[in-house]
Amino acid sequence: MSKPHTLSAFDEDLNRIRELILGMGGRVEEAINLASRALESRDEELAAEVVQGDKAIDALEDEINQQVVVLLALRQPQAQDLRAVIAVMKMAADLERMGDYAKNMAKRVPVLAPGPQIEGAGAAIRRQARQVGQMLKDMLDAFARQDVALAEDVIARDAEIDHMTNALFREFITHMMEDPRIITACLHYTFIAKNTERMGDLVTGAAEQVIYLATGQKPGDRVKGASTATIDVPVGDGD
Amino acid sequence: MSKPHTLSAFDEDLNRIRELILGMGGRVEEAINLASRALESRDEELAAEVVQGDKAIDALEDEINQQVVVLLALRQPQAQDLRAVIAVMKMAADLERMGDYAKNMAKRVPVLAPGPQIEGAGAAIRRQARQVGQMLKDMLDAFARQDVALAEDVIARDAEIDHMTNALFREFITHMMEDPRIITACLHYTFIAKNTERMGDLVTGAAEQVIYLATGQKPGDRVKGASTATIDVPVGDGD
Repeated sequence: MSKPHTLSAFDEDLNRIRELILGMGGRVEEAINLASRALESRDEELAAEVVQGDKAIDALEDEINQQVVVLLALRQPQAQDLRAVIAVMKMAADLERMGDYAKNMAKRVPVLAPGPQIEGAGAAIRRQARQVGQMLKDMLDAFARQDVALAEDVIARDAEIDHMTNALFREFITHMMEDPRIITACLHYTFIAKNTERMGDLVTGAAEQVIYLATGQKPGDRVKGASTATIDVPVGDGD
Repeated sequence: MSKPHTLSAFDEDLNRIRELILGMGGRVEEAINLASRALESRDEELAAEVVQGDKAIDALEDEINQQVVVLLALRQPQAQDLRAVIAVMKMAADLERMGDYAKNMAKRVPVLAPGPQIEGAGAAIRRQARQVGQMLKDMLDAFARQDVALAEDVIARDAEIDHMTNALFREFITHMMEDPRIITACLHYTFIAKNTERMGDLVTGAAEQVIYLATGQKPGDRVKGASTATIDVPVGDGD
């Protein structure tokens, strides 16, 4: 290593935190996958496992934040290094929120399971969740390899998620209009679709962090959800 | 000042950032107030102002994050000071999300304005938003004065918001069942109520940060939304 010792010590610490992020992200990816499977198959036990499992995800965020605090205190990084640490902390926060959304999906399973079957709803949510899970997986790979092209690809795919979400909204609204008795169940599915769409936004934000970490440049302001501002139920910023 | 110079320099910097937080919080409070007023009065111009105004809120978060980075680099705070800086950064992020929710409410105004009147919906959302705005105002006062009792009061009031939200959900579901033609509009109001409830959760989280900053102690794990886990549309974690 030609680098001064303090810098390489910083890199070692940061890499340890990156490993934690990757482990945390893998758990979130699994939670999204299992929650949507539990929803489709009305598997209340599996859903309960997902709800339980969120504690481990939250604990990982705490662990990462603690290591960040220690890193800042011990290594006192400057400029780009400091921004990298803060970006990693932000990524952990975004992953934690995704875990909460997956948990929220799982919490709705026992509410929906005893109710009426909404034709195709579970399968449609599962498809949407699978795509978001794949975006998350690729974002984590891009993060691990500092792969800017892959991160940009993830960002591009968020538009598909918005499109799927709006199609789902229209479908659920049609179901509600056809049969008022299933309005409450459809409302649950609508919230689930909305939350899954938000997971896509969070993955996109994390992918932007990956690009920022790799290039030091912030991606141009993306107009999040603008493509969907005109449809039945707009998917706006911040929700 | 009997404190060593570096510490008081840190305090000066942190206080400057706290002032920015208070200014940012005031803007968010106004955005919530104006967005709900625009919704009730179907005032599309006012709604557009709220959407525009969110840029200033986002800019304030960036400014705060930049000052935090400079503070960390220059003052290299340790232990409690370091945690205080990170807590302030987290509060700025929570305020930014609240601003996004207010903006999202405003973005739905031009979508809802030409549509059918949903009896009492605008007024009910306005009441809910007023309460959340008051919680935010009190949280900011508690933050400015390090007033733990006031912060605890804010946290206690979140249960009222959850209760109001669930009542609103039931009301909107009833409207949807009675008249399928207003389902889409009711769905918008349902999302707005949900987002306003989330703003309450974020204010609550910020109030917990205030207590943490003042006492150094994390409040016991609050089971967010648990009181509402059994109603028609559960208000779960993370959404």
